[in-house]
Amino acid sequence: MENIIIIGSGPAAHTAAIYTSRAKFDPLLFEGLMAGGVAAGGQLTTTTEVENFPGFPNGISGPELMDNIRAQSVKCGTRIKTLTVNRVDLNKKPFKVYTDEGEFAAKALIVATGATAKRLNITGEETFWQRGISACAVCDGALPIYRNKILAVIGGGDTAIEEATHLTKYASKVLLIVRRDVLRASKAMQEKAMTNKKIEMIWNSNVLEAIGDKSLSKIKVLNNKTNQEKIFEVGGLFYAVGHTPNTAFLDNQLKLDEFGYIITKPGTTDTSVCGVFACGDVQDKKYRQAITAAGSGCMAALDAEKYLSEAK
Amino acid sequence: MENIIIIGSGPAAHTAAIYTSRAKFDPLLFEGLMAGGVAAGGQLTTTTEVENFPGFPNGISGPELMDNIRAQSVKCGTRIKTLTVNRVDLNKKPFKVYTDEGEFAAKALIVATGATAKRLNITGEETFWQRGISACAVCDGALPIYRNKILAVIGGGDTAIEEATHLTKYASKVLLIVRRDVLRASKAMQEKAMTNKKIEMIWNSNVLEAIGDKSLSKIKVLNNKTNQEKIFEVGGLFYAVGHTPNTAFLDNQLKLDEFGYIITKPGTTDTSVCGVFACGDVQDKKYRQAITAAGSGCMAALDAEKYLSEAK
Repeated sequence: MENIIIIGSGPAAHTAAIYTSRAKFDPLLFEGLMAGGVAAGGQLTTTTEVENFPGFPNGISGPELMDNIRAQSVKCGTRIKTLTVNRVDLNKKPFKVYTDEGEFAAKALIVATGATAKRLNITGEETFWQRGISACAVCDGALPIYRNKILAVIGGGDTAIEEATHLTKYASKVLLIVRRDVLRASKAMQEKAMTNKKIEMIWNSNVLEAIGDKSLSKIKVLNNKTNQEKIFEVGGLFYAVGHTPNTAFLDNQLKLDEFGYIITKPGTTDTSVCGVFACGDVQDKKYRQAITAAGSGCMAALDAEKYLSEAK
Repeated sequence: MENIIIIGSGPAAHTAAIYTSRAKFDPLLFEGLMAGGVAAGGQLTTTTEVENFPGFPNGISGPELMDNIRAQSVKCGTRIKTLTVNRVDLNKKPFKVYTDEGEFAAKALIVATGATAKRLNITGEETFWQRGISACAVCDGALPIYRNKILAVIGGGDTAIEEATHLTKYASKVLLIVRRDVLRASKAMQEKAMTNKKIEMIWNSNVLEAIGDKSLSKIKVLNNKTNQEKIFEVGGLFYAVGHTPNTAFLDNQLKLDEFGYIITKPGTTDTSVCGVFACGDVQDKKYRQAITAAGSGCMAALDAEKYLSEAK
């Protein structure tokens, strides 16, 4: 039986692993195999330059930062299995963790499975997913299929504007399709969108359909004020409409909020089940930064350590 | 008038500065001049190797990590004044900050002044500080110089026992040096200390002197009941006699707990005064790690940003 099993592969998971490894709890970490639709390493692997993770004055690429953190985790002694956890049993102790290659038991569990970008389930979405539709402008925007085309971004928050701005590097024009007649984004980001001549705002609009042949070539857009439909020729459609926490595998054995995020006791990583701790974006819909995830990973490690030494 | 004044110079302060600078709030940061008895940069400047700050697989020295974070903060646009804040006025807005070189006003304030490990001022303490003497078992215990040695911990509270227990993973034996003939610690923690075969209690004792050559090798201990002195061979001496949060300059204008730590609303950096945020060790007596401090600095930045954009 394991002392601690950590489920996840981002900064929260590996910071928890670094701390529990150094404290000689010999943790076992499941990094998942495209779990949540994202490669091991989590959302950082889908970003380019990271300027706000403290410690790197010249910036560092997301994948490189994550490689560093994983290497540090391994160096501290973390055992890693590249297996997706399909389900868990938290009803009795030891806790059980089920994968395609068998089950594992642990005295304590740290859940750090993150959150995944949301989809809209519009007509044609499945057909053109990754054939013109993407949830990550930063990862996919540079692909040849998107070069010098008109591209569309759906969303009205900071992320949508970040992605639209990023895409202006490759696109001839970027349409920012906003559901309402205002942006949810911060003032600074709004100004950034408004002053970028390559970005055109499409207000009060919903994308109804993705249309194309082998790849996406058009979108049908409804103006929800006038009820008029319009076809836009686009070479790509990027979703920036929020995230879904990766908690389905828990099958409601932990208390979740209305959006599916794990509820932790504020200021701790304690979940509704004693001995199960949660950290990173899977329990944080507010801050959602690599550095806050890492900080909470450390908290989960120390909380688990305390739990295990008191439990004996 | 400033948008945001940040008081502090450690990972919490500079992460808050990096985020608020990038968000174009043009923060002004006071790093203090040996404030709290520690150089600008905070407690990291008094550590050697840091193995548990994620992102550095080969470790990084505390001062180098802090230099990096400060450089990144400056590069993002943070204006830094090397001035100690003597007092503040939080009774009306804008908040006032008083230094030897005049007063400053700000719409929002981030307090990240940290905590300072209490010292005992024994003979040799200055000489062997971080050369065998440490104030943080969790940070330093895993370092090679402490492996398989007899280690001593000074203190009788929960933290002392936690640190002693933590050290038993690396040490051949841990001496817990207690001033009185009882422990201040909770029952559960006392039992934990008593039943751990690697922990030996040294009751009614005060450490008089730290002795060594290049690094600590012995301590001289006085039994305050019998008045006998004894030399113990040790590879490390860990102070667990508490920290002092650097909150005196606040003059009780923020709600503090019984130990002087700023009370924040759990899961946020909100203090008892709207528009004043606290992050890092000045509000955290539980986790107290560089990475948790940095995470909370990011939270303070985002909380302050939200406050300022909603304020007008």
